[in-house]
Amino acid sequence: MSTAETPTRGYAQDKAAYARRLKRIEGQVRGIQRMVEEDAYCIDVLTQISAIQSALKSVSLGLMEEHLGHCVKHAVEHAHDTGDTSDMDAKLAEANAAIARLVKS
Amino acid sequence: MSTAETPTRGYAQDKAAYARRLKRIEGQVRGIQRMVEEDAYCIDVLTQISAIQSALKSVSLGLMEEHLGHCVKHAVEHAHDTGDTSDMDAKLAEANAAIARLVKS
Amino acid sequence: MSTAETPTRGYAQDKAAYARRLKRIEGQVRGIQRMVEEDAYCIDVLTQISAIQSALKSVSLGLMEEHLGHCVKHAVEHAHDTGDTSDMDAKLAEANAAIARLVKS
Amino acid sequence: MSTAETPTRGYAQDKAAYARRLKRIEGQVRGIQRMVEEDAYCIDVLTQISAIQSALKSVSLGLMEEHLGHCVKHAVEHAHDTGDTSDMDAKLAEANAAIARLVKS
Repeated sequence: MSTAETPTRGYAQDKAAYARRLKRIEGQVRGIQRMVEEDAYCIDVLTQISAIQSALKSVSLGLMEEHLGHCVKHAVEHAHDTGDTSDMDAKLAEANAAIARLVKS
Repeated sequence: MSTAETPTRGYAQDKAAYARRLKRIEGQVRGIQRMVEEDAYCIDVLTQISAIQSALKSVSLGLMEEHLGHCVKHAVEHAHDTGDTSDMDAKLAEANAAIARLVKS
Repeated sequence: MSTAETPTRGYAQDKAAYARRLKRIEGQVRGIQRMVEEDAYCIDVLTQISAIQSALKSVSLGLMEEHLGHCVKHAVEHAHDTGDTSDMDAKLAEANAAIARLVKS
Repeated sequence: MSTAETPTRGYAQDKAAYARRLKRIEGQVRGIQRMVEEDAYCIDVLTQISAIQSALKSVSLGLMEEHLGHCVKHAVEHAHDTGDTSDMDAKLAEANAAIARLVKS
């Protein structure tokens, strides 16, 4: 296939939004560096880190949602059409491992 | 500024180490922006975000540890010496709220 | 009841194993009640609660894995066969909400 | 000392309340066993497990709060009075390890 060499990712249509959210998170991390540099109060630094953790968690949940609704969905359809479940099995195993990492990280 | 106008923070002696860790985390966030820009596979992006979450969690636990061992400790000593528990009570309440945020973020 | 009135759940074949794991968790919760009754050291109680949390997290991840590999998979296949995506959309939304709760609980 | 052989725990005055909360959590775990027994929908089981996780987290945070405000506080005061920091150091290390387990479990 000539066209789809780079497959379309689940997050493709929201790519600009993800880029913006990650840019904002990068700014928040730089803000924490400045706080440490200026001897900010430990609790205030901790509060900012918790805010970043929540923002990252929210990005992760968005990506996972799009992964299930696109990549996993397509893999299930492909397995259903062809009887070859190998890609679907791999995609499901990957998704489960990612959910476990997300829950534990 | 005369002497202790800016109080010494619990993390003061590890300040350079914290700065380095946060710098590395900032680089990881930029790495994720690049991945999204280049249409990286969702699961690979998620794995990187989990790595950042773990790194931030570890920074938070370090700051909390130093907060308890310095700020909270000094507040308890001060209350014990003076009988005025107001600062200690505030410090403990803050620490508990920060632990709760940490556990939930 | 004729045949499939109660649908087969994703966890059906591991039902006995889940029952055993939950029975063990119930015993752990009773163990903590006993510890509190006997004035056990706070930190020891906390350690036991963390063990229960890990056990519950592991049960949740197992159920989610089977949910994706059965209920969500069947819903995707059904939508692919019939063109009616309503059940699949609902199943995916539910799964995403459950993953979010899992990550935040 | 004859009396205080079993030291008073931080949670002593709320002991009855903790006992009740743990009893309720035990009931919730039994409820999940029943759900699995009756082939309840995976997502409904997951929702109930998340509720238990939140209840346990809340118990843990309460115990930690009382641990800091009693055991750790007393250890700091004792170290301040006697100059012997060994118990305080041990108590702080334990508290930090427990916070880390709480955050990761």
